[in-house]
Amino acid sequence: MKRLTENQNFTAFFYQKLMKDYDHRNDHSGVSGERLAKRLSQLSEIGLTTGGGSCRIGFSNEELQAKEMVKEWMEGAGLEVRMDGAGNLFGRIHGKYPDKAAVLSGSHLDSVPNGGHFDGPLGVLAALEVAEAWKATDYIPERPYEVVVFTDEEGSRFNNGLLGSSAVVGGNDKEILLQTVDMHGKAFQDVIEENGLTLEQFFQSEQKREDIAAFIEVHIEQGKRLEKENLPVGFVTGIAGPCWLELTFTGKAGHAGNTPMDDRYDALVAAGDFVRQVEALPSNISPSAVATVGQLNVFPNGVNVIPGKVTLTVDIRDIFLETRDRLVAEVLALAKAVTEPRNIQLQVEEKVRIEPVPIKADMQRKARAAIEKQGITPYALPSGAGHDAMILGRHLPVAMLFVRSKDGVSHHPAEWTDLNDCVIAVHTLKQLLEDL
Amino acid sequence: MKRLTENQNFTAFFYQKLMKDYDHRNDHSGVSGERLAKRLSQLSEIGLTTGGGSCRIGFSNEELQAKEMVKEWMEGAGLEVRMDGAGNLFGRIHGKYPDKAAVLSGSHLDSVPNGGHFDGPLGVLAALEVAEAWKATDYIPERPYEVVVFTDEEGSRFNNGLLGSSAVVGGNDKEILLQTVDMHGKAFQDVIEENGLTLEQFFQSEQKREDIAAFIEVHIEQGKRLEKENLPVGFVTGIAGPCWLELTFTGKAGHAGNTPMDDRYDALVAAGDFVRQVEALPSNISPSAVATVGQLNVFPNGVNVIPGKVTLTVDIRDIFLETRDRLVAEVLALAKAVTEPRNIQLQVEEKVRIEPVPIKADMQRKARAAIEKQGITPYALPSGAGHDAMILGRHLPVAMLFVRSKDGVSHHPAEWTDLNDCVIAVHTLKQLLEDL
Repeated sequence: MKRLTENQNFTAFFYQKLMKDYDHRNDHSGVSGERLAKRLSQLSEIGLTTGGGSCRIGFSNEELQAKEMVKEWMEGAGLEVRMDGAGNLFGRIHGKYPDKAAVLSGSHLDSVPNGGHFDGPLGVLAALEVAEAWKATDYIPERPYEVVVFTDEEGSRFNNGLLGSSAVVGGNDKEILLQTVDMHGKAFQDVIEENGLTLEQFFQSEQKREDIAAFIEVHIEQGKRLEKENLPVGFVTGIAGPCWLELTFTGKAGHAGNTPMDDRYDALVAAGDFVRQVEALPSNISPSAVATVGQLNVFPNGVNVIPGKVTLTVDIRDIFLETRDRLVAEVLALAKAVTEPRNIQLQVEEKVRIEPVPIKADMQRKARAAIEKQGITPYALPSGAGHDAMILGRHLPVAMLFVRSKDGVSHHPAEWTDLNDCVIAVHTLKQLLEDL
Repeated sequence: MKRLTENQNFTAFFYQKLMKDYDHRNDHSGVSGERLAKRLSQLSEIGLTTGGGSCRIGFSNEELQAKEMVKEWMEGAGLEVRMDGAGNLFGRIHGKYPDKAAVLSGSHLDSVPNGGHFDGPLGVLAALEVAEAWKATDYIPERPYEVVVFTDEEGSRFNNGLLGSSAVVGGNDKEILLQTVDMHGKAFQDVIEENGLTLEQFFQSEQKREDIAAFIEVHIEQGKRLEKENLPVGFVTGIAGPCWLELTFTGKAGHAGNTPMDDRYDALVAAGDFVRQVEALPSNISPSAVATVGQLNVFPNGVNVIPGKVTLTVDIRDIFLETRDRLVAEVLALAKAVTEPRNIQLQVEEKVRIEPVPIKADMQRKARAAIEKQGITPYALPSGAGHDAMILGRHLPVAMLFVRSKDGVSHHPAEWTDLNDCVIAVHTLKQLLEDL
């Protein structure tokens, strides 16, 4: 009981924190900041960590509970709810022409192990808030509209991610998934059966392309660009596809005292030179390109031992395939240039290579227009992180609206977005949906 | 019983490996390569690891067993044996003038957790082999001669080292040792009492300076200089004193996808640039100076997270205090120069600062002469590693003879020195002792 009380206390605290600086914008749109704040707070209670973060791993009981909560809200808003074989939740308004292709909007409810309370939920609740507003104002959209909750976007369960949205476009590899186990060694099949799903249904979740007209995702930026521009929302130009390389530099370990400087094959010296030079490469290629050496391990890592081996990862991203791949090639050329003259052996393993998804020009134009109609300077920015919109964007028209993140913090309990910004995002999304 | 048999098999294997290329030099010196090989093999049995290495941690049962074995050999060679309060073992020949200051030679029998079979034992057995040769040839030295086994040179027990030799010159800090615990959390006092010693006796082990005329240590080189010169032995010019710095570079962690390249405070980029430039510093200062970044840890060390913090160590050595300290200052200046323009915070902690011990010119001259008398080109080289001779060398005349190490490998089961080289080292030591 103590735990429950603590959670309820957090919910109240979180709600008050959201409402503190809220400007209580009073209009006749039907959009309610209070309702949005209440729902964000109620979701925050599920999987609350001791540090005030969120732990709703994909396919967990917590993710299920969160979906159940949203399902009830969907029903309350008059949506027709269904769940597909991958556990994706859809709440449908049939619209004036129910046979037309539907417009979808939403995001996910799962989190990383100790994440925040906006990454995912805001996109779901913004989409739901539009449906609420339409209901309150008796607005009926032309096309069918579906609020969607995608399963397991973060991938913390199976160390992959984007499983639910991939199922909708038939993008999951059955062979690989059948061999996948979660962090406890539990097989993929067992995990989804625990979720009341079956393997057969899971792989029957693909929807016909012609049934979906577009997908719009609202998401926190998880970066600091909007904050720097002092803007509440912006529109996304493309979703960067990461390429993850694992490089191994092999030299020769030796005694740090007894090996003269001119007789060394120090793997860390080569790796250090590499890391330093990687930083300079992206800006020569594209303003949205980035390259990061985030992980680096030294062997044997002893104070008085010359490093014999270094493994490191390079995370390379851009929103355009051509520039991303050019950057990958330059990084590899640099690794060669740094290791060869030093007689350091180089091994390269490509761990991940996901195609970037540029957002189509007309979808960008529509998002920009919706922002302008809010009286906000339209600001275009790339998404460095992957999102469900990236998966659907390979097959369907998509747009993304980013909402300002405080200090750019994300995947952390301190993740924060002001309620005013959230509400502006809802209005922008509503505008965009009404214009589509 | 299986284990014992396995060990005995290793002993036989090790002996055969030593004898394989032995040239069975036949002279009338009384030095026996076979005996030396047999004794190296018998010691290798004590603390043998599954990988064929040696695990005789200081103050362990294995170190005690090894001392007991050597004690019996000392007694067999007619030496008068005593153990001091630090567990150092001395075997004495009184010589023609028993009241004169003694010449000491020896090394240690402890090892690192999975070390080799030459680092330490060779120096003890070479000193003992000289006594055996003198006995066999009825040679009586002018001065008293003592074969010495110093306790816990490697420091694997308490993460310090050189405890036994330090006790002989009163160099241990009582306050610090009383607060020291071993890897199992056992207090220093309890450990030495387990060894049959008392705290009181331990700190009464200091010997009068005037009782010791000189200390000569034979040791494997643990480097590749002699191998490159194709020489079996060389004489040491000085023992480098290490300075260990721990540097912390603090930047800002961030999402590798969502943080533009021009808005980063990447601690690893700064650290990489530092590591690269450290390599170039020593050769501008002294040919024997070295600097090594051996340990480097990245935080949070995630593939898609910009490194917010890096801690690394720099091991800086030279055989001269002035040049060593100049190098330390240059390393620190470099760290500042690399971090300041990047707005990376720098913290420096000095973990170790040991004074180098240059070997006195006349001791070097005598060692050189002894090598020349073996018909071997005299080769001078620094010692990058610390040795018991470093501790005694602060107070007394010392000399060191280095013996060729195969591939420079040490502190590893693959550590190897050919028996021919070991025997040449014994002859050189014998010459040097007879000339003193």
